[in-house]
Amino acid sequence: MRAIVLRNERLGLESLPDPTPEAGEVLVKTLACGICGSDLHMADHCHDALAGLRKGRVPVAFEPDQGVVFGHEFCAEILDHGPGCDKRYKAGTRVCSVPYAVNAQGFHHIGYANAYPGGFGELMRLQEHSLLEVPGDLPSELAALTEPLAIGRHAVARARLAGGEVPIVIGCGPVGLSVVMALKAAGFGPVVATDFSPHRRQLAECLGADIVVDPAERAPFDCWLEAAEAPQGFDMYGPMAMLSIGAQPRPCVAFECVGVPGLIARTMLDLPPRSRLVVVGVCMQTDQIEPIVGIGKELDLSFSFGYRPEEFAATLTDLADGRLDAAPLITDRVTLDGVPAAFETLRHPGEHAKILIQHGDRT
Amino acid sequence: MRAIVLRNERLGLESLPDPTPEAGEVLVKTLACGICGSDLHMADHCHDALAGLRKGRVPVAFEPDQGVVFGHEFCAEILDHGPGCDKRYKAGTRVCSVPYAVNAQGFHHIGYANAYPGGFGELMRLQEHSLLEVPGDLPSELAALTEPLAIGRHAVARARLAGGEVPIVIGCGPVGLSVVMALKAAGFGPVVATDFSPHRRQLAECLGADIVVDPAERAPFDCWLEAAEAPQGFDMYGPMAMLSIGAQPRPCVAFECVGVPGLIARTMLDLPPRSRLVVVGVCMQTDQIEPIVGIGKELDLSFSFGYRPEEFAATLTDLADGRLDAAPLITDRVTLDGVPAAFETLRHPGEHAKILIQHGDRT
Repeated sequence: MRAIVLRNERLGLESLPDPTPEAGEVLVKTLACGICGSDLHMADHCHDALAGLRKGRVPVAFEPDQGVVFGHEFCAEILDHGPGCDKRYKAGTRVCSVPYAVNAQGFHHIGYANAYPGGFGELMRLQEHSLLEVPGDLPSELAALTEPLAIGRHAVARARLAGGEVPIVIGCGPVGLSVVMALKAAGFGPVVATDFSPHRRQLAECLGADIVVDPAERAPFDCWLEAAEAPQGFDMYGPMAMLSIGAQPRPCVAFECVGVPGLIARTMLDLPPRSRLVVVGVCMQTDQIEPIVGIGKELDLSFSFGYRPEEFAATLTDLADGRLDAAPLITDRVTLDGVPAAFETLRHPGEHAKILIQHGDRT
Repeated sequence: MRAIVLRNERLGLESLPDPTPEAGEVLVKTLACGICGSDLHMADHCHDALAGLRKGRVPVAFEPDQGVVFGHEFCAEILDHGPGCDKRYKAGTRVCSVPYAVNAQGFHHIGYANAYPGGFGELMRLQEHSLLEVPGDLPSELAALTEPLAIGRHAVARARLAGGEVPIVIGCGPVGLSVVMALKAAGFGPVVATDFSPHRRQLAECLGADIVVDPAERAPFDCWLEAAEAPQGFDMYGPMAMLSIGAQPRPCVAFECVGVPGLIARTMLDLPPRSRLVVVGVCMQTDQIEPIVGIGKELDLSFSFGYRPEEFAATLTDLADGRLDAAPLITDRVTLDGVPAAFETLRHPGEHAKILIQHGDRT
């Protein structure tokens, strides 16, 4: 098969042997696959990223010199069944799957594993028990967004919202946008979203954010305070706020969707007392915080990672039912040979959010 | 009145004008007052500590050069009522109070405010509406422990325990010990407690810890794993644990009760996936964390600070009813002139937990 391969720290189009499905696995043809920010990070800082993941004991590992095929946001079509399959879905069925496989050799993150090429290749092997049929006429490229949108859904679940909170989403890349969409789909709001890029703010608005803020123009938490119906002249950091004495704004929950060093500390400093900060952005470097800031305000921090299989499945259903309208997320489409250029584009994303790789002629 | 005063970074016995109760305030005679780790920190690093609190927007501030009388863990006796009091409790009543006052000038932390001397002085002014009568024959020195024990009660409340968790308390100074006591009083356990000091481990055991660990001898989380009934050969950091596949140990909640740089990061690294870390120790320096560790394990961090007035009141009741047996916490008693030496002792606490200042002849 043809595939984009990361080998010896270079990304290139190669011809690889077709993958062979093991017991309980199917061979699929990739229809559409998204390029994720983690793919960019992994391509640019492979060894550091793998060291970071080891440090965090995240079960993602591969031998970079043996070649790895990225792509964990995919929609595919079943071509053939390996041994021992129950053939629940017949060949030709369009499917999505959580991007991991567990077998006798252990855990494999599809798209970040030598033995399990991802959707940057024309073919993949997937475990049958993880397959979900793409419902009805949901376009494959939207079905491929199940994975990044499940990230947002899970982050919102991690926030354990009671309903009265006013959420603020920091950073409107694909992760932040998926959080905005999940918040709106679940009926939470008003949603404040902040990003330096005018394109991404526009996207956030288009995807449902109620208030968008350019942090270069206005302090995001000043806007948040208005949205949270704070009493006139309320001092968010004064003793009355610290001690919950008198009228208070609605509670705050913030989603950190950038993942660069310093942003957790900055957000902790900006947050009103008794807020929850959900860390969704993946910062792989050592970071600094001021514990006294967290203590004085009694903050809660919840780190969010991935999603549960049932959240993945519910996201696919929401896409099919139109509860999630993800089409605006897709800002460009490329074929396999256009992937290296798409990586260059996404290094300075400008107007881009999600760039999709299209393999087949079926959309 | 006689009082131990911190002035120009030195702690000494001084004769001060008696405090004058304002409207709604009472004048009290201090009966007993505990020395807190924060007092030690404040005496040694006053300017840095105040800068740290400002950084955290903690509403605690005073002018160090104008002299400050520490002491926020007190039991006192009403001597006189200021103007506008409803005289709910008559003179001679023994009382406790949360150590803060809010008036037209703002918020004052009793014991860390120039205008509100704490229990290191013979007399204090307290707000009448904050007073709680010491029930029955509860000794004043035990009533004075209401404050530090309320810290533990609040930390346990911040952990939002469902009941199945196995708690681990890191550090068995007075804060850690109060967490151990609160956990046991609320029926949670088995409680694992860890400290390098044999004296403090012994105290933890005496106060209810089910398993005590010397981290120099054994990895505390190995002991925790046994207490949490992990399946034989369970790898706490393997993919099965990370992904919650198969039999899992009981959930973990850890209480960080030390408050030195590096301990949050160390604990995040040691914790099993999907644990909650309650940060009770007050680290005033900038600290480093590895966000990827929190992300990979989906940790929850809850910073805990102080307590609510109702938690303070419930703690006093528990002391009076014998649900909290705090006597072993008190490892020494001094009179006012012995306070500077007690500070020296507590800098290398050895066998000590709480040293109490006794003012009156009534205990």
